[in-house]
Amino acid sequence: MTADNLSTTFAALADPTRRAILARLRSGEAMVLELAEPFDMSLPAISKHLKVLERAGLISRGRDAQRRPCRIEAARLKEATDWLERYRRYWEESFDRLDSYLHTMKKKEKKHGRK
Amino acid sequence: MTADNLSTTFAALADPTRRAILARLRSGEAMVLELAEPFDMSLPAISKHLKVLERAGLISRGRDAQRRPCRIEAARLKEATDWLERYRRYWEESFDRLDSYLHTMKKKEKKHGRK
Repeated sequence: MTADNLSTTFAALADPTRRAILARLRSGEAMVLELAEPFDMSLPAISKHLKVLERAGLISRGRDAQRRPCRIEAARLKEATDWLERYRRYWEESFDRLDSYLHTMKKKEKKHGRK
Repeated sequence: MTADNLSTTFAALADPTRRAILARLRSGEAMVLELAEPFDMSLPAISKHLKVLERAGLISRGRDAQRRPCRIEAARLKEATDWLERYRRYWEESFDRLDSYLHTMKKKEKKHGRK
């Protein structure tokens, strides 16, 4: 069910460590030890975060028991982005309003001059 | 801190009722009673969800004590979308791979004919 996928995806993203791990994986696949390095966190704690990401389908891990690099999986991230994109007009409208406000302010400034 | 904003935003979105409320608000601002109508849920339960959305800055409510319609607030939704957009190349790459796979399959089919 898409509703559940989205909830699981957003819940997995609602943590700064997990987002930092995903950000790190943007520069290529990595092993658990490499992923753990920048964090002041135990390896089991990092592994737990990786499990949350893996269960949410946001990352996958190699099959080889000796070397199981993590990599980003795109599909769920796309689903979440598609859901959020429906709200795009709201922030575009806000910027339009800000833009026309600044425009009006500039016009007023011109009219009254700078004293 | 942006990290906290993002965590709060994603946590607020990690619930199908809250996402359904936001979806409803896309057709215009609405009162709590209107928002509660489609859900098999008590009014206090809906109010709780609205509070989560409001605290996360995803909705705002009118100031008038008698009439406090809810409306979508764009800024946090934009932040979350911006964060996710960084991963766009991952799903675009996946689709490119699928596309070239289908292309190869078609070519093969042509070559061998349909027997």
